[in-house]
Amino acid sequence: MAVTRPAGQKTGSVVDPAAARAPIRAGDYTGTTAGLAPGFAQANLVVVPAELAFEFVVFCHRNPKPCPLLEVLEPGDPVPHLTAPESDLRTDIPAYRVYRHGELVDEVTDIIGDWREDAVGFLLGCSFTFEEALIEAGVPVRHQELETTVPMYRTNVDCRPAGSFGGKMVVSMRPVHATKVSRAVQVTGRLPAAHGAPVQVGDPAALGIADVARPDYGDPVPIAHDEIPLFWGCGVTPQSVALDSKPEWMVAHSPGRMFITDVPNHELDVLGGGFLASWTK
Amino acid sequence: MAVTRPAGQKTGSVVDPAAARAPIRAGDYTGTTAGLAPGFAQANLVVVPAELAFEFVVFCHRNPKPCPLLEVLEPGDPVPHLTAPESDLRTDIPAYRVYRHGELVDEVTDIIGDWREDAVGFLLGCSFTFEEALIEAGVPVRHQELETTVPMYRTNVDCRPAGSFGGKMVVSMRPVHATKVSRAVQVTGRLPAAHGAPVQVGDPAALGIADVARPDYGDPVPIAHDEIPLFWGCGVTPQSVALDSKPEWMVAHSPGRMFITDVPNHELDVLGGGFLASWTK
Repeated sequence: MAVTRPAGQKTGSVVDPAAARAPIRAGDYTGTTAGLAPGFAQANLVVVPAELAFEFVVFCHRNPKPCPLLEVLEPGDPVPHLTAPESDLRTDIPAYRVYRHGELVDEVTDIIGDWREDAVGFLLGCSFTFEEALIEAGVPVRHQELETTVPMYRTNVDCRPAGSFGGKMVVSMRPVHATKVSRAVQVTGRLPAAHGAPVQVGDPAALGIADVARPDYGDPVPIAHDEIPLFWGCGVTPQSVALDSKPEWMVAHSPGRMFITDVPNHELDVLGGGFLASWTK
Repeated sequence: MAVTRPAGQKTGSVVDPAAARAPIRAGDYTGTTAGLAPGFAQANLVVVPAELAFEFVVFCHRNPKPCPLLEVLEPGDPVPHLTAPESDLRTDIPAYRVYRHGELVDEVTDIIGDWREDAVGFLLGCSFTFEEALIEAGVPVRHQELETTVPMYRTNVDCRPAGSFGGKMVVSMRPVHATKVSRAVQVTGRLPAAHGAPVQVGDPAALGIADVARPDYGDPVPIAHDEIPLFWGCGVTPQSVALDSKPEWMVAHSPGRMFITDVPNHELDVLGGGFLASWTK
């Protein structure tokens, strides 16, 4: 995946979230957010009409591995007061996909004109958070080394349904050296708000994946003879499940173009209490 | 608090959840569920009309310490399919409180006649789970030793509002020996689905509690000179906040009369993955 970055930014550079969002808000940056504002959690976006919001939030609650809820916004309010109170979901994502009746009808760089009074925004945790933790823990992330998109697969595993929402879980795969599998599980398990520990280790066939070399989305990565494929719940799941219900209107972020929050990744560490666990007066 | 138990059951006796629920369902037991089906999670019940369900689920998500969501039921469905699929919320709790416009209008032993097609049930984690963990870890629980009800306080801390729901957090207090405070934090911190770690340690005045010897609910307990008061988010909070909004109709469990789930307490241990983290085909 070709990566275009705001001037002066590269992977690993220290840019605070507001600074990273500024060129996005101005419409000057429409590329991937991978590597931007390192150390801060990024999020998947799903926007549905209020009449579907209850069913969708319950779906996410029942399926925390693919759909870890970071924030649910008030109906009609585009400001995520908990995760980035100075931002606006309508402008601060590099690119959006607009769907009608489950069909992609537009890809845009803001949704000011598309916004509705009954729009309810959902921000869901993102694998960028746990990939950073893996790398810090000495577990290499293959698709980052190759500068490709993580391989993703539609499995045969049913999500727990809620109302009209239901469907198969999508997983992402990262090959991990056999001696580092435990560490990968432990490190990502501390981050349930960013998909948490793998949903499965080592048996793609049992997930209905006929050939790991042929992902349904993203790019294939090689798996060495001493590596085990680890499968994590994937943030594509809520989008695909929501679209299966053919909502009259829905908006999501474009792939790889995530929402950058003000929440430090370490705030998602459940051993430190987890997100929203702290209370100040 | 006087405790009446089903014939043959006493604190610590091993009774499975279905066996513990049977006399409750039959109307033969209306006492506290403390100590019943040890090892299995119990839950607070809140039932609101569907029109308030979205706001209430978002309130719980934003306030996970006082309001840890275990399960949200489908509108009109009294069966908690995730936490006790053979049970029925309308009959399997020893006593219920029925509210109209925020006023208690009835206390009943089943809600078959009160149930509505638009009723949405919420089950929230309960401190019985973490008290069991504290005792297993060698941290005594004072009010259990005294066979009284845990002291609870209305604080000056605002919950994060959602829609029409908002209000002060209620906390419960347990005094812990200074050398065991860390252990108490660590043990309960593993159980975010049962209120998790304390919201505050050692400073009642900062919570707006003028006199710890005079709780707003429950019974006072002595605090020894070498003990520190630990304050946990309390399951009374969601009930009190929901009632503050004066919903036209609402049902909750009666104090101490909880719903007994089929979920082992250890399933709530976030270091073991946490509730709903496991997937089977």
